[in-house]
Amino acid sequence: MSLVRIEEGSALVEVPKKVVEHITERNEVFYNPAMAVNRDLTVLLLRVFVKEKDRPIKVAEPLAASAIRSIRILKEVPNVEKVYINDISLDALKYAKRNLELNRIDPAKVEIWNEDANVFLLKTKYFDYIDIDPFGTPVDFLDATAKALAHRGVAGITATDTAPLSATYPKTCLRRYFAKPIENEFYHEVGLRILIKKIAEFFFQYDIPIEVLFSYSYLHHFRVFVKRYRGARRVDEIMKTSIGYLLYCHKCLYRGTIPFDRLRELDTTCPVCGHKLDFAGPLWVGKLWNEQYVEGMLEELPHIRHQKETEKLLKVIREESKLQTVGFYTLSALGKTFKLPSLPRKKDVLKVLSGVPTHFSGEGFRTNLDHKEVIERIKALV
Amino acid sequence: MSLVRIEEGSALVEVPKKVVEHITERNEVFYNPAMAVNRDLTVLLLRVFVKEKDRPIKVAEPLAASAIRSIRILKEVPNVEKVYINDISLDALKYAKRNLELNRIDPAKVEIWNEDANVFLLKTKYFDYIDIDPFGTPVDFLDATAKALAHRGVAGITATDTAPLSATYPKTCLRRYFAKPIENEFYHEVGLRILIKKIAEFFFQYDIPIEVLFSYSYLHHFRVFVKRYRGARRVDEIMKTSIGYLLYCHKCLYRGTIPFDRLRELDTTCPVCGHKLDFAGPLWVGKLWNEQYVEGMLEELPHIRHQKETEKLLKVIREESKLQTVGFYTLSALGKTFKLPSLPRKKDVLKVLSGVPTHFSGEGFRTNLDHKEVIERIKALV
Repeated sequence: MSLVRIEEGSALVEVPKKVVEHITERNEVFYNPAMAVNRDLTVLLLRVFVKEKDRPIKVAEPLAASAIRSIRILKEVPNVEKVYINDISLDALKYAKRNLELNRIDPAKVEIWNEDANVFLLKTKYFDYIDIDPFGTPVDFLDATAKALAHRGVAGITATDTAPLSATYPKTCLRRYFAKPIENEFYHEVGLRILIKKIAEFFFQYDIPIEVLFSYSYLHHFRVFVKRYRGARRVDEIMKTSIGYLLYCHKCLYRGTIPFDRLRELDTTCPVCGHKLDFAGPLWVGKLWNEQYVEGMLEELPHIRHQKETEKLLKVIREESKLQTVGFYTLSALGKTFKLPSLPRKKDVLKVLSGVPTHFSGEGFRTNLDHKEVIERIKALV
Repeated sequence: MSLVRIEEGSALVEVPKKVVEHITERNEVFYNPAMAVNRDLTVLLLRVFVKEKDRPIKVAEPLAASAIRSIRILKEVPNVEKVYINDISLDALKYAKRNLELNRIDPAKVEIWNEDANVFLLKTKYFDYIDIDPFGTPVDFLDATAKALAHRGVAGITATDTAPLSATYPKTCLRRYFAKPIENEFYHEVGLRILIKKIAEFFFQYDIPIEVLFSYSYLHHFRVFVKRYRGARRVDEIMKTSIGYLLYCHKCLYRGTIPFDRLRELDTTCPVCGHKLDFAGPLWVGKLWNEQYVEGMLEELPHIRHQKETEKLLKVIREESKLQTVGFYTLSALGKTFKLPSLPRKKDVLKVLSGVPTHFSGEGFRTNLDHKEVIERIKALV
């Protein structure tokens, strides 16, 4: 079989040529070059994470494929005790092993498994870091991940089924995530928040509280890093503050949230324009980023070989994480809704609204100002 | 260790004496004599189920303990190919094996496993029938059950954590079941419906539709039998018709439902008395019984040795399944709410309201009549 050599970070891997050319679920060994940013961010986050630990960490990659992620973690993250590399395909493992050799990985640092990903996690638990990077939805792996993650451990979870989560296929979202998505200017953010709600459910059912350390939407995937803790009381607190519904007015762009267990207080009339409100959720209305982690990842950036896009994304998120609102505005939605004769410049908008940019949309911005105030100041700008 | 012999159905088992005396989670071999009704109903349902099949069925008991349930299934249900008996405790398996011998079970009819229940299910799938009978909540086993159940297979699931489900511990219910319970006259029914919603979520996320064949609340447990089918479109249909929220008026006892994805239509004002409505859910608002199964189980009753309580329960449910309303009324709640000078006789109430009794409460009844009509006719009776 014809092979292609790929360099990424400090890893050098060989994968079958057809895999790079045709990325589909059917490929035996899955290598997606667009995922380099995903892996850069994983390495950066883990470099921050290991500093918290007073001992080397134990890592699991249940869907390892070419093992490029495991190799990068082993070469680019200090203080990794061992990476458990699993794939259900023996063919994938053949390439994984070859790549481990190619990168001169110490065999004592890895353990190779050929199991169903969930059986693997349940039999080898517990791990300080688990990476779930499937083709499509991660739901198949969430229960075992919640069970196999060690106290104060981190899970990095990818979802490539962004279409259902972002309201292109709302029925699929209802079935798979038990939440209603929405078509509006920040539908990707809503999709990411629905994904986090789903992840949270699996942890909460076992009385495990979680914190979102980092999350983003990039090209055709969502990615979330959650850290788990202990304590049912803490879960109760997070349920109250971080799980809810989004309320949204398609007429005037008003947005608000209501806690999951406080539907009694729901008023479906827009408080600004009186139109009927739409809703999305249940979803995560808590923070999408831990600011210390974002800063830490930026500090680690010069120490690894990374994609330009990784840096760009991180720098926007650094700004964005300072105003963690639920939802953001876009210039085009404002222009269309309020029939503005022209669109204001984003720079001016950020200034008059004390706003921050968002990585979800180049023309988007977040602000803490009241909705009416936003509209007035935008109108005054044009 | 001192042993006790127990006869139940056509099974004879020996369990350690202390187990019968002190039923706690810590017991090595778990035998709960109050569960005889649970096992009677399991055998009856399976006797109906096997008639649908043109081949012998494959059964799994992932939490087998003394194996009394497996033994009863093997002795009392025709056309069982094999029962996979699993327990994580070697001590429990020691008794299970002894009991299999004591009952002269053909060794070719059983396969013994000593694994984590979820690993066992994932490694041995698929099954026509899976029985989940844990101490406490079944949530730990739902993901693997959804993955391991064969097309047109049935899962029988017990929950003994009725206190959270029935609003004694509402925060635990939120964490564990992602639903709000409610304190009212039919809180047990709400608890059962929340449990079914949770079970449904695990199946729906894999595009698997389910039907509730039979369910009930008895002493300190809830029990649900679901049958799985195929087809995402069918899941969409069930989401629409069978998942929703309960709306409830604590002032006038009005109750209604609203579909899960139609919160836009929510009005939190009681349409009867104008009071603020409370809510519960999301929960299962679909049918709790398949009437053909209920009839079939009653027909099988004379063919097995059973508890008197089993017959009593089944006969009430036969009546109850004819009016599958969400929620029911109780005489005491009506009396208290409407300050009735005396309580009408249940017989008279059933007559004037064309009602049916409910197994959830001796003083409860279901009716299809409009809420206002119910109140008027009740008032006219006293």
